[in-house]
Amino acid sequence: MRVIRLEEIRQALTSVDVLAEIAAGFVAYSRGEAVVPPVGELVLDDPPGDVHIKYGYLRRGDSYVIKIASGFYDNPKRGLPSSNGLMLVFDQQTGAPHAVLLDEGHLTDLRTAAAGALAARHLAVHPVQRIGIVGTGIQARLQLELLREVTDCRSVMVWGRRAEALESYREDMTAKGFDVATTLDTGELAGSCDLIVTTTPATEPLLRVADVRPGTHITAVGSDTADKQELEAAILGRAEVVVADSIAQCRERGEISQALRAGFVTEEEVVELGAVIAGTAPGRSSSQQITVADLTGVAVQDIQIATAVVRSLASE
Amino acid sequence: MRVIRLEEIRQALTSVDVLAEIAAGFVAYSRGEAVVPPVGELVLDDPPGDVHIKYGYLRRGDSYVIKIASGFYDNPKRGLPSSNGLMLVFDQQTGAPHAVLLDEGHLTDLRTAAAGALAARHLAVHPVQRIGIVGTGIQARLQLELLREVTDCRSVMVWGRRAEALESYREDMTAKGFDVATTLDTGELAGSCDLIVTTTPATEPLLRVADVRPGTHITAVGSDTADKQELEAAILGRAEVVVADSIAQCRERGEISQALRAGFVTEEEVVELGAVIAGTAPGRSSSQQITVADLTGVAVQDIQIATAVVRSLASE
Repeated sequence: MRVIRLEEIRQALTSVDVLAEIAAGFVAYSRGEAVVPPVGELVLDDPPGDVHIKYGYLRRGDSYVIKIASGFYDNPKRGLPSSNGLMLVFDQQTGAPHAVLLDEGHLTDLRTAAAGALAARHLAVHPVQRIGIVGTGIQARLQLELLREVTDCRSVMVWGRRAEALESYREDMTAKGFDVATTLDTGELAGSCDLIVTTTPATEPLLRVADVRPGTHITAVGSDTADKQELEAAILGRAEVVVADSIAQCRERGEISQALRAGFVTEEEVVELGAVIAGTAPGRSSSQQITVADLTGVAVQDIQIATAVVRSLASE
Repeated sequence: MRVIRLEEIRQALTSVDVLAEIAAGFVAYSRGEAVVPPVGELVLDDPPGDVHIKYGYLRRGDSYVIKIASGFYDNPKRGLPSSNGLMLVFDQQTGAPHAVLLDEGHLTDLRTAAAGALAARHLAVHPVQRIGIVGTGIQARLQLELLREVTDCRSVMVWGRRAEALESYREDMTAKGFDVATTLDTGELAGSCDLIVTTTPATEPLLRVADVRPGTHITAVGSDTADKQELEAAILGRAEVVVADSIAQCRERGEISQALRAGFVTEEEVVELGAVIAGTAPGRSSSQQITVADLTGVAVQDIQIATAVVRSLASE
């Protein structure tokens, strides 16, 4: 078994078309070509932490993938990142372990950002006028970076709770070629941005339905549990198009689960990202519609990015 | 993260008291000190194979362990063992990956054999007169080897379906100091052995209640699914003591699940191995009783053996 460390993974990624891999994964998933059992969970009470095990394979693929991702929320006090993780790639014919990717959670971050870029490509009104980013963390940065692949827009407004974090974000993303304004008011952001990405672990809505203008696309990536919520549920009721990365998963967690429980949408109104990408489900049909994509993270993304990295290294 | 290959694992095991580690694990498990979520399962239809993910931790321990074990039944045609597997050890405080143990399934084989030895230590009539082994595979060998730690008996009768496999078993175990007779008749085996270990993947009972004599202890390790069965269910009805490695698990799979469904035992009559070892549940109370231990394999065994190997290597 090959052990692949983060530096080598980053190098291999330079020759991987991440968006194409993730798009193919969503299409296969929505066609029922992926086997993705329920997520395994291990909760550690004291100290606080939780571990998720996501796994599966594509029928007619070469590999199966098991991802272990952890969040230990006291880690920053120890000078460690709260997230950690690794992915294991096995041979689908023999069960032999091929590789362990010690990605420290980077591949998860990247495949999540790639899903956001795909949602924007297929659902935003193009050309995008201004990008709104809610949050200032790793995902707030990566989402913006990957949006470069689907839009020429470089005008950005970022929302955060702390001026310091906003300034740091502004500096970093300005260095990457964006023109970044900051705000402490999500209403101001919604008033000037037509492509909004929310990336926070909020448990109370940050974005209000009254502030969202016609023609806006919103991608919500922060909420991946039954408790977290970034969007007022009425936004999903107001939206003409509501897209889930996985309908099965969004039933249980994320913004869509909140809106279903509150009665703002019915499951029949929700379409899957893979079907939108494949053109078998309707996406946006007018520049005045509001569209929402709720991304909770699906194992098929892990399968795709892990096998792409291993394939890239094998072909060197 | 440290990558530990089989050769190094075998070396580390020479300074591990496997029986003591597994015994402590069962005791902790039966006291409710282990967190062991439901087993994750991935089934690959074509080619045939299945993957089990067992994971958990001991409260007040240092680590959590995730084991991936696979069985791909066409592998022998390719000259590969059907079983494969690895174990991952993580820091319970931070989630950081400590080690991957590329044990190729050996630690699972060993912890299973250790459980059999513990059952024999606590439930067989000592001194044992003759050991009966049902089956001729890896587990049939390892069970006998580990019984050396709990009994001085070296007289053995082995049952198998094929004379060739029996002869090979006889040769191998004779070289390890046992006096081995062979038989094609489990009735003959039950008639002369008072400690019987069944190790096959049979789906029809091999051992009949009419053949089992008073004073016999039987450990059944082969059946780990709802379908497999090595013992006529009436044997568990006849037995005065029925022991499960995990009552929760034996409800769903193994010999006890068969006997529960057939009405030969009730769940209240079943005691756990960890409680017997700790002395908090009754084991054998007379040399005339029949006792049965049903071992389906519990993640706490994986936790114990994996952390013991890592600890042994760290203290070198």
